[in-house]
Amino acid sequence: MTTFVGADIGNWHVKELKPVRGESIPFASHLQIEDHPTSTPTTGIWKLRGFVSNIRYTNHSERKKILAVQEGLGRPQATCAALIPIRKNEAWWNLAQDERRAIFEEQSHHTAIGLHYLPAISRKLYHCRDIGEPFDFLTWFEYAPTDAAAFEELVTALRQTEEWKYVEREVDIRLIKV
Amino acid sequence: MTTFVGADIGNWHVKELKPVRGESIPFASHLQIEDHPTSTPTTGIWKLRGFVSNIRYTNHSERKKILAVQEGLGRPQATCAALIPIRKNEAWWNLAQDERRAIFEEQSHHTAIGLHYLPAISRKLYHCRDIGEPFDFLTWFEYAPTDAAAFEELVTALRQTEEWKYVEREVDIRLIKV
Repeated sequence: MTTFVGADIGNWHVKELKPVRGESIPFASHLQIEDHPTSTPTTGIWKLRGFVSNIRYTNHSERKKILAVQEGLGRPQATCAALIPIRKNEAWWNLAQDERRAIFEEQSHHTAIGLHYLPAISRKLYHCRDIGEPFDFLTWFEYAPTDAAAFEELVTALRQTEEWKYVEREVDIRLIKV
Repeated sequence: MTTFVGADIGNWHVKELKPVRGESIPFASHLQIEDHPTSTPTTGIWKLRGFVSNIRYTNHSERKKILAVQEGLGRPQATCAALIPIRKNEAWWNLAQDERRAIFEEQSHHTAIGLHYLPAISRKLYHCRDIGEPFDFLTWFEYAPTDAAAFEELVTALRQTEEWKYVEREVDIRLIKV
């Protein structure tokens, strides 16, 4: 379980925090990421928890393409980051697996869009729908300042998809490495 | 989050508790099911926690067939129950979504087998892989004593599937309503 803590201190400085759809979360000047719960967690303005899980939509050939080109988190040049919590509506979650997959990829090209921006934009997905959190997913992105325009293209493209019609809450937090 | 508590008291009497594959769990004479965490949870010999989530493999037409015939839990005549915790191996979880789906249904006919025993055998699936529990899934079944033979057929059929080759730990707990 990973906890993202919006606080007065942290390894990432919050450059901007804005609601994209639905209610926002309070502003915090910094973000601290806690991968391992400690007995003295950071006291924060807000906390968002999530866990990494098995892949839910990506098929074998898509994953092969991703693995061939993606780079990990923590690259020295990747001093820009974004944390984008989203929640999808009940209509999405009431769909069967094949219906969600068809919207996600065949209609919205979610994986194909992300693949286009690899290896520049690194990404890690955390799930939180099933643990009583206010969002369903927390996506963490890292990129170099020279790839900032590419990142804007990526989020703009995703927000124009059929899949995004099911997003009922989204907050966009942009960060700079301290 | 639902907690299954193996204890000295509870609404279900444990008739049998046996390992099917891998390590067992300690015997407890009763099972208490706690759907809502309270400030004074039952003190138990063991506790297994899980949550209901969105469907992961079932497609639209399969779900339609299930919804047309299934019955809910808590039927007065359904005085027999089974709690079957299982854990799948890393090979399973490393597969892409389409590969897991193909093994689950096209090769193993998991949904089709379950459908054959509806409405006699009611079923509810709890997920627990992502929350640090010792099992990946807890499946709860309820049926009338007259359907006990059908239930044996169902579990026997599932254990002979390709999917079950990925099960590395399984415990079978049979219960009678107190």
